Amino acid sequence: MMTLGDAPVRVALLGCGVVGSQVARILLEQADDLRARVGRPLELVGIGVRRTTDRPGIDPALFTTDVPSLVAREDVDLVIELIGGINPARELLLAAIQGGKSVVTANKALLAQHGAEIYDAAAAADVDVYYEAAVAGAIPIIRPLRESLVGDAVTAVKGIVNGTTNYILDQMHTHKVSFSDALADAQRLGYAEADPTADIEGHDAAAKAAILASLAFHTRVTLDDVACEGISSVTADDVRAAESLRCVIKLLAQCSVSPDGTVAVGVHPTMVPLEHPLAGIRGAYNAVFIESVNAGRLMFMGPGAGGSPTASAVLGDVVTAARNRVRGVAGHGESAYSTPGITDPSSVVSAYYVAMTVRDEPGVLSRVADAMARRGVSIAAVRQEQTSGGSGARLGITTHRAPDGNVRAVVDELLGGGDVLGDVRVLRVEGA
Amino acid sequence: MMTLGDAPVRVALLGCGVVGSQVARILLEQADDLRARVGRPLELVGIGVRRTTDRPGIDPALFTTDVPSLVAREDVDLVIELIGGINPARELLLAAIQGGKSVVTANKALLAQHGAEIYDAAAAADVDVYYEAAVAGAIPIIRPLRESLVGDAVTAVKGIVNGTTNYILDQMHTHKVSFSDALADAQRLGYAEADPTADIEGHDAAAKAAILASLAFHTRVTLDDVACEGISSVTADDVRAAESLRCVIKLLAQCSVSPDGTVAVGVHPTMVPLEHPLAGIRGAYNAVFIESVNAGRLMFMGPGAGGSPTASAVLGDVVTAARNRVRGVAGHGESAYSTPGITDPSSVVSAYYVAMTVRDEPGVLSRVADAMARRGVSIAAVRQEQTSGGSGARLGITTHRAPDGNVRAVVDELLGGGDVLGDVRVLRVEGA
Repeated sequence: MMTLGDAPVRVALLGCGVVGSQVARILLEQADDLRARVGRPLELVGIGVRRTTDRPGIDPALFTTDVPSLVAREDVDLVIELIGGINPARELLLAAIQGGKSVVTANKALLAQHGAEIYDAAAAADVDVYYEAAVAGAIPIIRPLRESLVGDAVTAVKGIVNGTTNYILDQMHTHKVSFSDALADAQRLGYAEADPTADIEGHDAAAKAAILASLAFHTRVTLDDVACEGISSVTADDVRAAESLRCVIKLLAQCSVSPDGTVAVGVHPTMVPLEHPLAGIRGAYNAVFIESVNAGRLMFMGPGAGGSPTASAVLGDVVTAARNRVRGVAGHGESAYSTPGITDPSSVVSAYYVAMTVRDEPGVLSRVADAMARRGVSIAAVRQEQTSGGSGARLGITTHRAPDGNVRAVVDELLGGGDVLGDVRVLRVEGA
Repeated sequence: MMTLGDAPVRVALLGCGVVGSQVARILLEQADDLRARVGRPLELVGIGVRRTTDRPGIDPALFTTDVPSLVAREDVDLVIELIGGINPARELLLAAIQGGKSVVTANKALLAQHGAEIYDAAAAADVDVYYEAAVAGAIPIIRPLRESLVGDAVTAVKGIVNGTTNYILDQMHTHKVSFSDALADAQRLGYAEADPTADIEGHDAAAKAAILASLAFHTRVTLDDVACEGISSVTADDVRAAESLRCVIKLLAQCSVSPDGTVAVGVHPTMVPLEHPLAGIRGAYNAVFIESVNAGRLMFMGPGAGGSPTASAVLGDVVTAARNRVRGVAGHGESAYSTPGITDPSSVVSAYYVAMTVRDEPGVLSRVADAMARRGVSIAAVRQEQTSGGSGARLGITTHRAPDGNVRAVVDELLGGGDVLGDVRVLRVEGA
């Protein structure tokens, strides 16, 4: 990497939407502070966009639709990628890196699928790749995992990392509305997109889980490694059941070390006890809870999305990358020396809540309990109630920690017998 | 700074108490992981102690009481200072820095009083000074402020940064015990020292407030700049009053930008509304709440003390400093370009709770309200009750935000008149 003498650090911004426009604003409005913190001016030399339009306060001459040429400019030191998606973001970032530019990105989907390629290219070119804004918006979580906890052994990371689903679940708990009503409300208020699939089916959270797991365990986890279950199947009954257990349902992106040393990574709607710090994270806020051998339990919370908060995280990375460039070095790259492997989904251990409608007859509970005992699934609590129709009983069982495959096998066996009338529901339960 | 080739990074540890012994343990037990993360082995070459004694698992040959010679050793790359206090820690750290060694310290008292001298020496010698463990134990807070939020404009930092006082206040709320009983309990359980002055009078929190303010506002704040009020004067009456206002009393280390652009820094027992995230921080846990222009409101929580958690923070710094050394560079030093000045204590703005015993006669409340109005102190809520003795009334007033000096002047005026019978209490109230 070349040093810069007294020249400014020249920045190209790709994308000028909700986040990009805030990044441009801060680069222009806080130029004096940023210069003092970097030791050189940060000069915004171009903004790559799909269509040039007027943005108040930004010199129209900065905009270009020829994004590859902007990235290829010899005088650009640092590229901020806020286009999102895989293509053309991937080609543009790789071109920037191969051209000796450091890059800052908020693109979780790209990093979760092509992170290794990008980190390897950056290591080969001796430039920085920073991506604090890719997970949990403004909350510093990448840097704490990459640096603050690098002398510790992280055992689990559990995050509420998608504001849309947290808002919807929060509404379902607070106002006792159905999933579809809560989704429609979130769309009306701008918390959910017109096509909400990536959020509600957990894909966005899964990409973030892959990134968090890679950092926490010094390995490489991709989107394909992440077991993913969204919230579209969560019902008002689930919400009522959670509340009767003094829990709230949260969509948790989790990664943890399994008993065999492999790493379990998944996104699941999960019953979280009210005493757990994650239970209190409301609305569109995000939070990440970390367990490690020496530090113990840590939690970070803050705004998980939005233009200004995400821009704050981007700018933190921009200043860090620019400081490195001024000193003529790249920061320490990704640490991926470890190859623990991914836990087989059926071996992932959790406590579960299993609810089902059963025939209201003597002996049913005994047979259900026996089926669990034979698979090594230990019962923590049972609750049985008449169904409102009166044709059966609703049985709700909380289990101690057991492998997912064993719990599924119990459910399959019960569904194959004559006692279960249907409506079987399985949800994970987080420890207190 | 010199690069190291393939040689190990050689570490000298000063102090082997509660934290130091855990740092030594992790350096030895997790040597393989640490080597993989640094890219070179981390070799513990010596441990400076006051008296050599046996520590299980540590080679006795590592111990030395000749600490200055250990620091001066040519083959030492990195010095970890866990002695605490001003002397001889200051001389040892300066000698290490001047000898070209990077340093990691948890010494808040030293940094709050002599930080500028140490940072300047490190900049001159092109070595690192890292001190994540100096504030809030295992919670990553220094690095988020130094790096993650460096592209943002922080407006306030509010922290529960002393576990001893948080434990005592928590006991006073939970068990309705007096301050002295809660302190005795904390001492019996090892949460408070035999001489608890530094904790309960707020000096420890004040040192941390100075460090946080320096980082948050890119300036230099020392212990002398911090207004400091401890918790030894907090009474069971205060606790009851707080609860009647749906608040808990917390010792907050605060720094914020005042309306005139200066920086207010102080440690005060403060009524915190139950809805505020800081209200839920229990026992010996710590938390730091940050407000910034772009990121909004963030909070970090975790164990604020203890051998292993503090050692985790130290090791994160050790790995970062060692990585820099391997690459032959120092990290970016302290950013202290800004000189906003310290807010005059009488101009610090806060909401207040003012309680006093007054004569139970017509006209008293009117005169108290008038005294406040004449000083521009606006009343948010009033509560008046008969005292149990019956000789007067207890008046509790919550104010809107007003300058400290104005509130004090009101109290002085009331004490000089004939209406107040005594027992005046003034506490800050945090916004929801």
